[in-house]
Amino acid sequence: MNKRKIISVLGKIISTEVLLMIPALLVSLIYQDGDAGAFLITILLAGVLGLICCFVKQSDQRMSSRDGYFIVATAWIVISLIGAVPLYLGGGFESYFSALFEIVSGFTTTGASVLSKPENLGHGVLFWRSFTHWIGGMGVLVFVLMVMPMENDNSMHLVRAEVPGPTAGKLVPRMRTTSMILYGIYAIMTLVLIVILKVLGMNLFDSLCIAFGTAGTGGFAVSSAGIAAYNSLAIEVILGIFMLLFGVNFSVYHLLLLKKIKDVFDMEEVKVYFGVVAAATLSIAINVIKMAGGFGNALRQSFFQVSSIITTTGFSTVDYDLWPEFSKHVLVLLMIIGACAGSTGGGLKISRVIILVKSFILEIRQIINPREIVTVRLNGKPVDKKTLSSTRIYAAAYLILICVFTLIISLDGFDLTTNLTAVLSCFNNIGPGLNMVGPMQNFGIYSDWAQVVLSIIMLTGRLEIFPMFLLFARSAHDK
Amino acid sequence: MNKRKIISVLGKIISTEVLLMIPALLVSLIYQDGDAGAFLITILLAGVLGLICCFVKQSDQRMSSRDGYFIVATAWIVISLIGAVPLYLGGGFESYFSALFEIVSGFTTTGASVLSKPENLGHGVLFWRSFTHWIGGMGVLVFVLMVMPMENDNSMHLVRAEVPGPTAGKLVPRMRTTSMILYGIYAIMTLVLIVILKVLGMNLFDSLCIAFGTAGTGGFAVSSAGIAAYNSLAIEVILGIFMLLFGVNFSVYHLLLLKKIKDVFDMEEVKVYFGVVAAATLSIAINVIKMAGGFGNALRQSFFQVSSIITTTGFSTVDYDLWPEFSKHVLVLLMIIGACAGSTGGGLKISRVIILVKSFILEIRQIINPREIVTVRLNGKPVDKKTLSSTRIYAAAYLILICVFTLIISLDGFDLTTNLTAVLSCFNNIGPGLNMVGPMQNFGIYSDWAQVVLSIIMLTGRLEIFPMFLLFARSAHDK
Repeated sequence: MNKRKIISVLGKIISTEVLLMIPALLVSLIYQDGDAGAFLITILLAGVLGLICCFVKQSDQRMSSRDGYFIVATAWIVISLIGAVPLYLGGGFESYFSALFEIVSGFTTTGASVLSKPENLGHGVLFWRSFTHWIGGMGVLVFVLMVMPMENDNSMHLVRAEVPGPTAGKLVPRMRTTSMILYGIYAIMTLVLIVILKVLGMNLFDSLCIAFGTAGTGGFAVSSAGIAAYNSLAIEVILGIFMLLFGVNFSVYHLLLLKKIKDVFDMEEVKVYFGVVAAATLSIAINVIKMAGGFGNALRQSFFQVSSIITTTGFSTVDYDLWPEFSKHVLVLLMIIGACAGSTGGGLKISRVIILVKSFILEIRQIINPREIVTVRLNGKPVDKKTLSSTRIYAAAYLILICVFTLIISLDGFDLTTNLTAVLSCFNNIGPGLNMVGPMQNFGIYSDWAQVVLSIIMLTGRLEIFPMFLLFARSAHDK
Repeated sequence: MNKRKIISVLGKIISTEVLLMIPALLVSLIYQDGDAGAFLITILLAGVLGLICCFVKQSDQRMSSRDGYFIVATAWIVISLIGAVPLYLGGGFESYFSALFEIVSGFTTTGASVLSKPENLGHGVLFWRSFTHWIGGMGVLVFVLMVMPMENDNSMHLVRAEVPGPTAGKLVPRMRTTSMILYGIYAIMTLVLIVILKVLGMNLFDSLCIAFGTAGTGGFAVSSAGIAAYNSLAIEVILGIFMLLFGVNFSVYHLLLLKKIKDVFDMEEVKVYFGVVAAATLSIAINVIKMAGGFGNALRQSFFQVSSIITTTGFSTVDYDLWPEFSKHVLVLLMIIGACAGSTGGGLKISRVIILVKSFILEIRQIINPREIVTVRLNGKPVDKKTLSSTRIYAAAYLILICVFTLIISLDGFDLTTNLTAVLSCFNNIGPGLNMVGPMQNFGIYSDWAQVVLSIIMLTGRLEIFPMFLLFARSAHDK
């Protein structure tokens, strides 16, 4: 372990967070919501801490991939611990643990809230909450790499640990340039959305918050009514489309920029993604047709909810907990599947699902023709053995962890549907679940310790299991 | 495909089933329950069919492993279709599909019933229902191999497809001898149990039925009150212990017969199995202490239910659907884990869980020390690559299938807890689930088509996924 290196990188991360908190402070000052002090104290204290860490004398030693995982896990925990402070000091939360849950939910782009009425919070806190979605969506470390340069090798280790999906893609050889391209695309798309929402009649503050929540596939709204509050077909359709766009593998946009249109059409993951969306939208629409009063309305509700759940955003326009059971089951399935790898969305990821389903089919083919040499292919290219084995282990770990986590939070005494969908929702970074944690409910029902467990589940899901477990494993195997 | 060979093996299987139906006919005659005619018609018709198939002229061609899977899947479907006939003709079932569900539940040792009052059935039908547990527990094909000899190579293919677990173990080089040893141990243990139950005051008929249900880890009782009907601590304890014994890998008993005691203590799977039982029993006992009125009673209830669920038997002495949520969650976890490989129990199997958990831990170790060569070991021996990859694919397929099957039966409109536990219960061959399919409820709530789907789920789970899917895959890949 390269301790000096780790502390210095953490210093950079904390400093970056402090800088990112300044807009929220300004919002607080503009709206005079009384939370400016809370932000100021946090910024000062964390700023000093960050600077001290930055000045730790570095060794020239290179980082190992293990250091990368360790830094990423620690960084996400530290920024959450700091990010929760203004929420707690602002006074809108019952305990520091509730504030922590809320901000972890922000950074991990889950969007699950412990509040029944977020509109009671000050504008600064609301802004910060939504802004953490935007930061967490593309990745905290990816952001840090862009603003504070690092050796290419070292940064690769960090990105591998933070960017979701079975393989970490480099768009261009230099990691810093990759970060810039990703954040460039991300920022421009977000900006376009903000402008559209403003044009459609949303006020500027809401446009910003909702756009952050959409771009990061987070799902925090600014009032308890959620997106239904705007009561506008246009806004629903635009958000539905943009959620889907942010759930697409970002390398698609890079390919589009390079005018490699043909390559985009070869992306199997993207085709499957839109196929699943279409199938789910249609089957739910047919299922809820009576309840929604006509096919048009059913399609509108279905499309928004499907888009929101498969991208793991978690916005809602209707209380889908009241839908027929089949539709609810489809949503739970979408929760597990999730969005594309390399997007801001969570879940198991489409590419993983493709690899797993193909592995299964090929295993059957292997039994039929034992001498045939079978290869799992994704986007037309063979998947290498390491990725194949990791993906299957990931699925097994996913199954085991969902079971264990559901068992742990069952100590709070809620029913299986509530606990299972709460865990699925937190692990896959969605937001709402079913029953007691349905779209019109909130996670405030869980006790303090269960909220801490759920926070760990959100982080474990966002960082895709291994970094968080490495934290616990390291002491035992440390040299 | 070797069609003549397949038809001739199917002929042997049908003929064997006909022979196995004769005891039920005798029971029906002794009790004069009016169902003797139903059995006689079935025996005559199926007997003729079986004989015709047996006389198909065989080629000398050898069987492929694919033929093995195909035969096993077809055999289980055919014996179920035939086995359901006397139930349907007897008149106790609403439709042929309900009778089919019941007998599939019997052969697969699930023990889920569509009846609210099984005591309304005649003795012959009750006997047949329970006897199918006993046949299905150790395996239909394994039985056929014992009574009707076959080339060693061919029989190995059949056993590999039928015996549960990540690897099919041969106890001795000759497959026929292995079958005989397995069935010998199985028969003696069953006989011991029958005698004990009789001594403890159960009548002979009940002793036979309950012993068959215990030995096959099936779970059909002879009345709606289940095991609670006998109201005897001794019977509960004995059944609890015997269920556990039948959930142990049968190679343990073979080792004991060979006096290789040391090898038994090296069996990691068995140690983990008893460890899980102890941990689950204790934690549930503490959780239900208030409800059961004291620790002694809590331990009694907890031990029986844990033993019944982990071995996937499905007997019950209390309505555990009324237990606190934590205890119910533990039971659901046990449903997924299941018993040892090479036992009569179902579920994911302890050895698979061990391999999966170790894979996960080693993946983390690999990240920490990328140059270390890591090997998954089971019972002290390294697990070969093929088994490792199959086990991981199996876990992925398990996850996918549970999701898809739950979605399909949700069309009947029941809630997530009911549908999920119904699918888990059927796939893992347990019997009861939670909520609407809890231990005091039955599967009669599902519609005819859903019962057919659930029957397919039971068969898919019993044969461990691949044989059933090969049936559907084969037409596409047939030469």
